[in-house]
Amino acid sequence: MYKTKPCFECEMPASNPLRVLVLNASLKHAPELSNTEELAELVLERMNDHTAIESEIIRLADRNLSPGLGYRESDDDEWPEMVAKIKASDIVIFATPVWWGGRSSLMQRVIERLDALDEEYHASGRSALYNKVAGIVITGSEDGALHTMGTIMMVLTWMGFTLPPECTCYWVGEVGYPPAQDRAQRLVNPAVPNMAKNMARNLVYYAQLLKMHPLVPRVAAAVA
Amino acid sequence: MYKTKPCFECEMPASNPLRVLVLNASLKHAPELSNTEELAELVLERMNDHTAIESEIIRLADRNLSPGLGYRESDDDEWPEMVAKIKASDIVIFATPVWWGGRSSLMQRVIERLDALDEEYHASGRSALYNKVAGIVITGSEDGALHTMGTIMMVLTWMGFTLPPECTCYWVGEVGYPPAQDRAQRLVNPAVPNMAKNMARNLVYYAQLLKMHPLVPRVAAAVA
Amino acid sequence: MYKTKPCFECEMPASNPLRVLVLNASLKHAPELSNTEELAELVLERMNDHTAIESEIIRLADRNLSPGLGYRESDDDEWPEMVAKIKASDIVIFATPVWWGGRSSLMQRVIERLDALDEEYHASGRSALYNKVAGIVITGSEDGALHTMGTIMMVLTWMGFTLPPECTCYWVGEVGYPPAQDRAQRLVNPAVPNMAKNMARNLVYYAQLLKMHPLVPRVAAAVA
Amino acid sequence: MYKTKPCFECEMPASNPLRVLVLNASLKHAPELSNTEELAELVLERMNDHTAIESEIIRLADRNLSPGLGYRESDDDEWPEMVAKIKASDIVIFATPVWWGGRSSLMQRVIERLDALDEEYHASGRSALYNKVAGIVITGSEDGALHTMGTIMMVLTWMGFTLPPECTCYWVGEVGYPPAQDRAQRLVNPAVPNMAKNMARNLVYYAQLLKMHPLVPRVAAAVA
Repeated sequence: MYKTKPCFECEMPASNPLRVLVLNASLKHAPELSNTEELAELVLERMNDHTAIESEIIRLADRNLSPGLGYRESDDDEWPEMVAKIKASDIVIFATPVWWGGRSSLMQRVIERLDALDEEYHASGRSALYNKVAGIVITGSEDGALHTMGTIMMVLTWMGFTLPPECTCYWVGEVGYPPAQDRAQRLVNPAVPNMAKNMARNLVYYAQLLKMHPLVPRVAAAVA
Repeated sequence: MYKTKPCFECEMPASNPLRVLVLNASLKHAPELSNTEELAELVLERMNDHTAIESEIIRLADRNLSPGLGYRESDDDEWPEMVAKIKASDIVIFATPVWWGGRSSLMQRVIERLDALDEEYHASGRSALYNKVAGIVITGSEDGALHTMGTIMMVLTWMGFTLPPECTCYWVGEVGYPPAQDRAQRLVNPAVPNMAKNMARNLVYYAQLLKMHPLVPRVAAAVA
Repeated sequence: MYKTKPCFECEMPASNPLRVLVLNASLKHAPELSNTEELAELVLERMNDHTAIESEIIRLADRNLSPGLGYRESDDDEWPEMVAKIKASDIVIFATPVWWGGRSSLMQRVIERLDALDEEYHASGRSALYNKVAGIVITGSEDGALHTMGTIMMVLTWMGFTLPPECTCYWVGEVGYPPAQDRAQRLVNPAVPNMAKNMARNLVYYAQLLKMHPLVPRVAAAVA
Repeated sequence: MYKTKPCFECEMPASNPLRVLVLNASLKHAPELSNTEELAELVLERMNDHTAIESEIIRLADRNLSPGLGYRESDDDEWPEMVAKIKASDIVIFATPVWWGGRSSLMQRVIERLDALDEEYHASGRSALYNKVAGIVITGSEDGALHTMGTIMMVLTWMGFTLPPECTCYWVGEVGYPPAQDRAQRLVNPAVPNMAKNMARNLVYYAQLLKMHPLVPRVAAAVA
């Protein structure tokens, strides 16, 4: 079905297409252009240079994620469906704009809801997210990408995700210029394509490596 | 020379002993007891349950790390020697106390000095730290471990390190109690041994995996 | 109507009762007990030792705050009503639990929505929040209060709020113990009542001072 | 001695010149140009539009601040002298470059050393830093100013400093461009002069207000 390309660069055997899920926490509704989504799409393109991928981007602003810490918080809560997609993925990309120096309220909501999965881990001692690789995509009119990135990485490692080197691609502009110019500036930025390329290569490499050699802890961990 | 033990749990082939370097950024001088160091030692012990390791702990407060961003900043600058040790390691553990919610000035100094290595990467397109695994150990009288951890992870991924799941072990106490009780509280804390065990297992697993299957990017990356 | 008490300690003239608004970003719905709210109530009590206050606590989990960056984002958006209350207050207390090291998604939502007020400032050069005093209340099962506090302070100073010394009261527990014990631990914590007392006194003092001597910039500021 | 100018804008009575201390945590030694220092100087100029000031800038890279948490950590420790200057100031400006998303190791060292003053507060119940106003100046080649600023504000409020609205002035550039262009970009940035102007006006206003109406807690606070 999916034509897999051998990855010459990373010397990994071709396998089934990698399943990649992007959670886009932009505050904008579709079809409004999301800078964050456009940058995530660039990373997906670069992944495709290495191997076949099957990808889906979820625009969180258009979904119903009720506040709370349970697995299902309301009748129309779309979180359980999202958990199923996360569990079926090899790579999950957490994509968020920067608002006042931090992740958006939609990304924070995802992290709060992931807590139920984490509780499952504390009970079973085996994270459902082990052997999955995470990446991060961030855009901001100015300032805050590195801080936002660090705070998300901290959560992801406890959740059980693997974080390859250079697991992020971001764009932030100079302080004080109008956000209306952001997209144009980003599209000509010399660092962004290179970050996208390294991030894509490393995510693919680690995902393939862990599919071949998954970490399967023998002994259940107690409450952490 | 080194007797390697097969790692039954993680099903990895035994190899040469893993070289583990701990950079301890405690503000205390040896031989004063460092809570951070004692916790790092616990992680080393748990690693030893899986495989043979060759480890060294550097107490940064007793070394001379001049401020600056070059490779050698003064005649008695001990940074170049430290770089050699980092490059020879499979696993590097960044251990720091929390001071006012962040990493200590000694850990910040190490990060500033690592910048010269990072410049080398930007020039060569190949990080000397690829295929090395990083872990983080943190202690604080109260509050700040998760934030400190995230800000260090952010730096380490750009440096080229791999961050396994649960790559951290920490202890922080409840707000408002005297620091003199910290050690006693930490030694009976139920979560700490479990974090140490998971962190140790995962660091060993990923280090062995990357020794067998190193990521060797074919094409040099340009300026990121 | 309101009997004002002279504040002997801070030597400030008694004035009309101070209006205090608490925005509680707990994820719990009323009437479930919110640790964050209980702590905010303690601060209100201590304020009352100095002067008469007129206070209201808004449980954000029970309100409809649509995502977005405009002044009114949906027909049933309760943000405009909240803005009116903020503008009518002398003191605003931002109260949030810690979730994974940061402020809750509800507090992040408030900050995103405050952005419309901030745009107003950039247009008029005069912040509607000048001469208002802000305080912060935080509770967390473990770790993250100081980081959360700093990220909120950063936003509040740009919004135009004044931050007195010791403008925060928080409780965080030791890592690794069950959240079910949090409340009991907090209620016997020796540092918390003292933080509440100092925070309350300082918020009252600065609010009274700024009522008597408001900062009224003569010249409109341009885009910042 | 000092000619004081009446401050027409803020309608405050002219008083003795305000004493302003700038702690510059640049990693560069004098006389190398420090972007951070140049920006701090701009803020001092704008202060001078409102009132007479007596200012001093300390280049921390050229001083000896031993690591540790005591009042005097070595024979040639210059910290005690710095404490005397802080205590004699009405306004203290904490100026730092951003290194890997956070404050420099020299600013972190200052914060660690301020801990001894804080201990004094816990013992006496009266902070020596009450009624002093703090400001923050930050420059970075890219990203991190807002996070750095928040983490410093958090420390300063506990130390006893007052933080006026818009207490910061910063410049950070777009990701991916050579640091060599930073200064030129900063000098033409439209937001920076406005931030400097607002910060300067507000620092002066609050410092004068607190000189006339100092907060003098009657009852000593216990351990916080």
